[in-house]
Amino acid sequence: MVNFELTREYIDNLQELIVAKNESAISELLEELHPADIAEIYEELSIDEAKFLYFLMDDDTAADVLTELEEDDRKKFLDSLPSDVIAKRFIDNMDSDDAADILGELDDQRQQEVLSHIDDVSTAGDIADLLTYDEDTAGGLMAKELIKVKENWGIPTCLRSMRRQAEEIDEVYYVYVVDSDGILKGTLSLKRMLLSPTDVLVKDIYNSDVISVKVDVDAEDVSNIMDKYDLVALPVIDSVGRLVGRITIDDVVDVMREEAEKDYQLASGITEDVEASDSVWQNTRARIPWLFIGMAGGILASWVANGHIDLIDRFPNVALFMPLIAAMGGNVGMQSSAIVVQSLASGSVGLETNWLKLLKELGIALLNASILSILIFGYSIIFKDDLALTYTLAAAMFSVVFIASLFGTFVPLLLNKLKIDPAVATGPFVTTMNDIIGMFLYLTIGNMVFNFIT
Amino acid sequence: MVNFELTREYIDNLQELIVAKNESAISELLEELHPADIAEIYEELSIDEAKFLYFLMDDDTAADVLTELEEDDRKKFLDSLPSDVIAKRFIDNMDSDDAADILGELDDQRQQEVLSHIDDVSTAGDIADLLTYDEDTAGGLMAKELIKVKENWGIPTCLRSMRRQAEEIDEVYYVYVVDSDGILKGTLSLKRMLLSPTDVLVKDIYNSDVISVKVDVDAEDVSNIMDKYDLVALPVIDSVGRLVGRITIDDVVDVMREEAEKDYQLASGITEDVEASDSVWQNTRARIPWLFIGMAGGILASWVANGHIDLIDRFPNVALFMPLIAAMGGNVGMQSSAIVVQSLASGSVGLETNWLKLLKELGIALLNASILSILIFGYSIIFKDDLALTYTLAAAMFSVVFIASLFGTFVPLLLNKLKIDPAVATGPFVTTMNDIIGMFLYLTIGNMVFNFIT
Repeated sequence: MVNFELTREYIDNLQELIVAKNESAISELLEELHPADIAEIYEELSIDEAKFLYFLMDDDTAADVLTELEEDDRKKFLDSLPSDVIAKRFIDNMDSDDAADILGELDDQRQQEVLSHIDDVSTAGDIADLLTYDEDTAGGLMAKELIKVKENWGIPTCLRSMRRQAEEIDEVYYVYVVDSDGILKGTLSLKRMLLSPTDVLVKDIYNSDVISVKVDVDAEDVSNIMDKYDLVALPVIDSVGRLVGRITIDDVVDVMREEAEKDYQLASGITEDVEASDSVWQNTRARIPWLFIGMAGGILASWVANGHIDLIDRFPNVALFMPLIAAMGGNVGMQSSAIVVQSLASGSVGLETNWLKLLKELGIALLNASILSILIFGYSIIFKDDLALTYTLAAAMFSVVFIASLFGTFVPLLLNKLKIDPAVATGPFVTTMNDIIGMFLYLTIGNMVFNFIT
Repeated sequence: MVNFELTREYIDNLQELIVAKNESAISELLEELHPADIAEIYEELSIDEAKFLYFLMDDDTAADVLTELEEDDRKKFLDSLPSDVIAKRFIDNMDSDDAADILGELDDQRQQEVLSHIDDVSTAGDIADLLTYDEDTAGGLMAKELIKVKENWGIPTCLRSMRRQAEEIDEVYYVYVVDSDGILKGTLSLKRMLLSPTDVLVKDIYNSDVISVKVDVDAEDVSNIMDKYDLVALPVIDSVGRLVGRITIDDVVDVMREEAEKDYQLASGITEDVEASDSVWQNTRARIPWLFIGMAGGILASWVANGHIDLIDRFPNVALFMPLIAAMGGNVGMQSSAIVVQSLASGSVGLETNWLKLLKELGIALLNASILSILIFGYSIIFKDDLALTYTLAAAMFSVVFIASLFGTFVPLLLNKLKIDPAVATGPFVTTMNDIIGMFLYLTIGNMVFNFIT
């Protein structure tokens, strides 16, 4: 299989084949492709063209392609189909976690309709069960499909049961071992089975060191656990320890990617989950909130400056450096909060307490503040023949960098204590606050220095 | 196994046991823990304490713990050990990819010494081979350990060979199928083997739709491919198609996490890979470059403003809004470049060309510029009794937001064309440039408007 690359020519060619209703040529094209590639192609087609493709695919491929689509496109596509087609052609051919995720995007009435068209009651029950979990928890990530064996079985019984269970599952990573009450006891590695004689019991060879999570554990914690322990699958247990599902690494990779994108966007002042391919209006809506906050902050800063308009009036040179001081406050605050946000998100905080973090930040702040203050002092002494301005710049730079560092460290720690996602703090709040603090310190110091010297 | 939580009490207790040389109690504690947990504990101990623990662990655990350590700590630890201990106790018990990564952290002479102490020539050869690949490529990520079978074997031959090969490997995800020249032909799923009769040949049941990468493919592309196709392992081939290794998802998750952290830090103006737990000096060194650039930008902006010092002198009110306009330029530019950087990094660019991206950004820029311009006009009309200032603010806001958006989109696209990581553009470069552009536009427009009106 060659790695597929989407080109305009490919889409043009495909659209011509669709117009010509050349089913055999299209089927041949599709057969070479991975569902993820077909999903990419689909995003470039109209609903009617996409539907035409869908009904040329086998059920498994069609279900996989649906899973790979972007949520918006999937919603449009499903809205154009009757409930029984969704149930029989798509949902019935998916893993339970994907089925639940996709049903969860439909409204309640439509969910019920689709579920009622699924023939196998236990499948429908599994999906309905998964729909009850919050999507940001282990329960929302897990699938019901897994292979489990009882601890008192022998290898031949295991193999027979595993063959039957394996038919429903794409890939087998672990075989889980449970007791007669369904309580998770451990795992049986396939490698161990390959290497064992056939006359042993499961309980003699299984590995009881199994890491599991409860259904209500936060998705971000799940991803941290799987990352830390290098797991490809993680069993999920209920409150009494019964095995109820398993989470696979591919779902967690998606969670990680989304978290990273969200944090990156928040740090850049973008509030909604938005992508380059989204519309002009979606992009504007995602960006305007921070711009409002930034503007409000800038206006507040102008009020602060207005309180010292006499100083600016008498010494216009002071005004020249207002943007510099405000920007340095913003920059320093952003750096400090980014470090804190990242250490909180990765969960690897070690034993450093919040006080130790603040203390260390104090050291960094003092060092940075001294270096930058000396530099601006040197610059001003050489290029600006104005001693009061030089002293003002050096003192303001020191205090702004120092205070903005501490502020940038303190705010995310505080938000975290208050159970608010600290990532929202880096972009808008800290930068804007530090702009205002910067203006206040600069002009207040300026007033004192200039009054003293002149 | 309970999920382990590191506490100060735990470390205190452990340190007491170490002082008392209570080997049996320590062994008992360690036995309950996952190597990743032991690595966390180790980071809180002194070298001598850690060494004491190391020699109480079995070889496999000791090797796993070493792999899990932070690079700095590992380096310190290895520097205190003789080469033959490193070879026999650690490297020999690791997967080849981990062994190569860790050896790659040592200097050349030490690498040779350690390799010469490994008894098995083929293991040493595998590791030496892996050391030749750039660590940011598929070759640098892959391990040599994998299970392969020949396409003309029967199932019993396969099983015998797999049993032998499996002894060296932690987890078996895929069995790879090669021809007599070692060319990768496909995969054999364990599930398929569980379900097949024993008298078929590999070539009758293997899956030829296998996605693979060449050794020189970029690590970020590897992670995009594994994410897109939901793979837990990816075979690596040489330039003629021979199977030379495989990459597992846990290594790629680490790459993804590092990439995301790096991009986040770059967006926040932090240049080196730094963590909250690093020293004050490391933290300062990682932050000061952007602060220098920001300061240079602010000083340049002060020159731009100095060109219009007459305007500020005559109308000090103009100065009050200089930080606002500069900040808005920075904010808008950062948002635009973040969106572009993210769409470039994810590789999912669809069919939108660069021109289309710029065109769309033009739309967003016009919309945002109009909204913000009207708002500042309204604010100024109500609160500032100064028509020239009001016109200046509205016109400057419009042009700054508009131009900063386009600039923020254009710069990362240009850097990407020049094969420079566009993530470096978001933080320092775009923000600082837009500060300067903002000051220039604001004061130039101000000069024209005030000259015209007054």
